[in-house]
Amino acid sequence: MMLIGMFDSPFVRRVAVSLKVLGLPFEHVSWSVGKDFERIRQRNPLGRVPVLVTDDGDSSIESAAILDYLDEFVGAERALLAPCGQARRRALRLMALATGAAEKGVLQVYEGVFRPADKRHEPWLARCRTQMHAAVAELESACPAQVEEPWLLGAKMTQADITVVCGFDFLNDAFKFPAALYPALAKLSARCAKLPAFAATRTSFHAPIS
Amino acid sequence: MMLIGMFDSPFVRRVAVSLKVLGLPFEHVSWSVGKDFERIRQRNPLGRVPVLVTDDGDSSIESAAILDYLDEFVGAERALLAPCGQARRRALRLMALATGAAEKGVLQVYEGVFRPADKRHEPWLARCRTQMHAAVAELESACPAQVEEPWLLGAKMTQADITVVCGFDFLNDAFKFPAALYPALAKLSARCAKLPAFAATRTSFHAPIS
Repeated sequence: MMLIGMFDSPFVRRVAVSLKVLGLPFEHVSWSVGKDFERIRQRNPLGRVPVLVTDDGDSSIESAAILDYLDEFVGAERALLAPCGQARRRALRLMALATGAAEKGVLQVYEGVFRPADKRHEPWLARCRTQMHAAVAELESACPAQVEEPWLLGAKMTQADITVVCGFDFLNDAFKFPAALYPALAKLSARCAKLPAFAATRTSFHAPIS
Repeated sequence: MMLIGMFDSPFVRRVAVSLKVLGLPFEHVSWSVGKDFERIRQRNPLGRVPVLVTDDGDSSIESAAILDYLDEFVGAERALLAPCGQARRRALRLMALATGAAEKGVLQVYEGVFRPADKRHEPWLARCRTQMHAAVAELESACPAQVEEPWLLGAKMTQADITVVCGFDFLNDAFKFPAALYPALAKLSARCAKLPAFAATRTSFHAPIS
């Protein structure tokens, strides 16, 4: 399999971490949505990453759809998202908060990348910041305080942990959150950083060049 | 159940259409992400719609997660998205194109809503337009040419049809596509418009007021 996109995108990284956690080897093609826009568009008309090119040559787009495919590929026993019930609902809510916050972060980054300084609009950025911080604050309050339940949904790491940590790491890198602001998320992130799947996909944030 | 959000959002509308197709009654609360931002934020920290408030008082956020919940609620027999395999992959790709195109449409609309005229940036709008049209063009080519297979994935209407038509109707309303540009999608939309679930949720587009 081939994964297209840079690891400083939390959407690309959550797929990369999932592939590694599931033990699925892949070739990484580190194209940028800035300078490699036209090449990416040949695989995904939206010009977005991640794109996962499977061994039969199909291009799978959108990180949620790709993760859904990977869970089916490895089977129910090893799937990272529960197939149904409260565990699935809870995970999907945390993932929606993390991806939503990341999207609001991306919009703030894009304001600087795709727009000259005199076209930036502070009230719009403030709206995005408000949305981002409110979602991250709910994630913070969802973090386990106890060592006995180390993961967001209990004893086992799930896609909720992967998506939340990838989202948080991206935002924390891009916006330099004060350490005291989200201490539980910072602790969860630090623990993940010691795991090979997370460590191998950690890159410092660089805004794309348009 | 209570569905929060206006039907001119394709994300709200695809949930509303799905609820109606599945025969699930709901109260509709037509709050706008512009003027009702603070009220929406009490249900969803991201300040986004749709929000589905279930009968036990839980707020479910993000349209994909809500649709996943509804499919589980009604059971595998009646679910609108196939549980696995090629049918699921194909549907998720079409849905990703439709929601991605809609997101690029929303960004163009927001440029006018949340930003004064002197802060708008044509190259950014052009990038969004390019992404939107490329995705819609792939959807157009995926539309069935034959009457024998009336739906995107064959004989049965699925979530792919609902999401694609809701996305297309939104974009077509907001950007007034020339009729000759996407004739197959226009035909699919016109056929859906005769079904009660689509007709009852069709509203003309109004940009939110910030």
